[in-house]
Amino acid sequence: MSVFVSHRLQSVPASPIRKLVPYAVAAKKDGVHVYHLNIGDPDIKTPDVMIDVLHHWDVNPIGYDQSQGNPEFLQSLRTYYHRLGFPFIDTKHIQVTNGGSEAISMAMFAVAESGDEILTFEPLYTNYNSYAVVNGITLKAILTTLENGFHLPQRNSIENAITRKTKAILICNPNNPTGTVYTKEELRLLVDIAKEHNLFLLSDEVYREYTYDGREHVSLFSFMQEIPNLAIVLDSMSKRYSLCGIRLGALVTLNADVLSGILAIAQGRLSSGSVDQVVAARLVDVPDKYIHAVQTEYAKRRDVLYEGLQAIPGVVIPKPEGAFYTIVGLPIDDAEHFCQWLLTDFRDNNETIMLAPAAGFYASPKKGKNEVRIAYVLHTKALSRSVNILKKALSAYAQKK
Amino acid sequence: MSVFVSHRLQSVPASPIRKLVPYAVAAKKDGVHVYHLNIGDPDIKTPDVMIDVLHHWDVNPIGYDQSQGNPEFLQSLRTYYHRLGFPFIDTKHIQVTNGGSEAISMAMFAVAESGDEILTFEPLYTNYNSYAVVNGITLKAILTTLENGFHLPQRNSIENAITRKTKAILICNPNNPTGTVYTKEELRLLVDIAKEHNLFLLSDEVYREYTYDGREHVSLFSFMQEIPNLAIVLDSMSKRYSLCGIRLGALVTLNADVLSGILAIAQGRLSSGSVDQVVAARLVDVPDKYIHAVQTEYAKRRDVLYEGLQAIPGVVIPKPEGAFYTIVGLPIDDAEHFCQWLLTDFRDNNETIMLAPAAGFYASPKKGKNEVRIAYVLHTKALSRSVNILKKALSAYAQKK
Repeated sequence: MSVFVSHRLQSVPASPIRKLVPYAVAAKKDGVHVYHLNIGDPDIKTPDVMIDVLHHWDVNPIGYDQSQGNPEFLQSLRTYYHRLGFPFIDTKHIQVTNGGSEAISMAMFAVAESGDEILTFEPLYTNYNSYAVVNGITLKAILTTLENGFHLPQRNSIENAITRKTKAILICNPNNPTGTVYTKEELRLLVDIAKEHNLFLLSDEVYREYTYDGREHVSLFSFMQEIPNLAIVLDSMSKRYSLCGIRLGALVTLNADVLSGILAIAQGRLSSGSVDQVVAARLVDVPDKYIHAVQTEYAKRRDVLYEGLQAIPGVVIPKPEGAFYTIVGLPIDDAEHFCQWLLTDFRDNNETIMLAPAAGFYASPKKGKNEVRIAYVLHTKALSRSVNILKKALSAYAQKK
Repeated sequence: MSVFVSHRLQSVPASPIRKLVPYAVAAKKDGVHVYHLNIGDPDIKTPDVMIDVLHHWDVNPIGYDQSQGNPEFLQSLRTYYHRLGFPFIDTKHIQVTNGGSEAISMAMFAVAESGDEILTFEPLYTNYNSYAVVNGITLKAILTTLENGFHLPQRNSIENAITRKTKAILICNPNNPTGTVYTKEELRLLVDIAKEHNLFLLSDEVYREYTYDGREHVSLFSFMQEIPNLAIVLDSMSKRYSLCGIRLGALVTLNADVLSGILAIAQGRLSSGSVDQVVAARLVDVPDKYIHAVQTEYAKRRDVLYEGLQAIPGVVIPKPEGAFYTIVGLPIDDAEHFCQWLLTDFRDNNETIMLAPAAGFYASPKKGKNEVRIAYVLHTKALSRSVNILKKALSAYAQKK
């Protein structure tokens, strides 16, 4: 036992996705093949034009970059946002961050005092909980349901949750973990509420490119000039270019006070990675066909997963609209126990699957007990096989009881 | 004007080192050569064995690494600490961080609640102020003086500053910005105080390898087994291997509660850079002669600077004992004005120097008004020339008045 550590350190939640890792490690040690549906680490290749930067690296020493961001990378981001259709974004509106993670954390610090509240919707991206504790913020999660495809509740349900401590609304769109893509009307609703109640609107758009069935992604950028001081977009390079290990994201806003304040924080941590930024700056040279191929691939995977799961009796799955996650209801009582059992007890031809129990994606206790989150980042053959394993496992689990 | 941002965002101090940057930029636009003595961005080459990692990169996609750190990099750090003479350090005692910056910030969060105090000594590394604001901590700085070579004050001066809100003592050793290397007796004193008052002792040892005149660096590691729950070492790869742009550091402690808590924070931000960590893991292959050559080079630079400045009338400089910074007293009233004037008005053969006013390195107001911080990271010829420019500038500045 240590003498003491801070209470706040003890309240940082351990990752619910990584909790079952020891059981997966043990299974693998026994020679069991584990299909990972529990984590969104894509197998899609990083574009060659980015890998080439490493092969041709000729800067020595590898010194600090600028605190706001590498000028070339900032220019590339500007070009990217212009191509998306938002020509009013200039480099001065962009702060480069260490992954989307730092963007979210900086935004929370910027918009709320310690003890204040930020509204969001559950199920939610679990790391929001960590950033909230680190920034002394209470995350107030409004329930969305599987039955409703995890779309937003009525206006009054949102407004009823607003207190005088509420400083912002945070959304993830397309949504991790639900796969929901909010409609234009839903964005309009949130913008109206933000305006009326003078709240910041934070939009985490890491999965912007991944929407299915011809669905349009409605970005907060579309409303940014209407609420220039309230709108903050949070972004990341990780999923768009398969650059999870290149720790780069961005915070984009027209609010000059937010920008100058977070630049001071950024100066405190000196700079983001210099090599990483030169790699990511090549995003302007990534051919359209790369993104299209990735989109097509994820759409195919979604279809395989959705059709496969729909055919299993008792499984409830809303048709995922975007990103590469979905929350699935299973015909069981305790998903945490089931997920652990899959790793410790169940084998089919010496293979099993790893899923993430969904309870960890809810802020409210007792929610999502019979749900799991599935990331469909494996190729279609592996996904088919995983669905088959799940079907057999559910049947074996039911008989066991 | 924005509608609102948080008060805490507005209290993050802008970097005092970077405040004068616009004047330097303007001078350079006019074709003036500016010698940068204001910032510790070394010109020493990154070891080839590290650059080679980039040239031979063959991992694709560039995925997340583990939250605690890349296993190979953790092993390399373990080996490094063993070679230093601390074989009790295992990989489980190490958390990899995004630069030394994140190590300091995580440590502050871990040892103190929002509103608590951490004692340190001024002049101080200015970014400590940013991390303190971000973590809601009051940094209480005890004055050390140029006359005393910025060594620690008497025991009672330190103990008198302790209140019931004090949770830790933070030192930088060798010190940025003073160049002071604390003696074994000073470390002993701090360890005794930490034990008696049940305080954490945080030691930022980023410049561990850089001590001069045969002076030994006394690491907190030497006392770690005596106060296993209280001692935390903060480290960085930036200056040791000229890897400032590879954003990697480490937090090392035997306190298991601190480690498990900060691992949860680390999980929240997923991982440090994957490419960066493979690069830095090669530290075990950096030949001793690399470090020795760098040590010799900095010792030479220190001598050139020290001897040159000593010869200027009215300049007060303690002999720098380590790191590559020194705080220098100048025969002027307002160092901030002087530093700005150097950039805007003074030219010698169309060249000038950039210095950092020392006031920004003090937490107390009105301290260090006539002092500057000098980083001696330029080669000796440039340093000689810089000293010469400073001499002429001081003379011109005195006549001007």
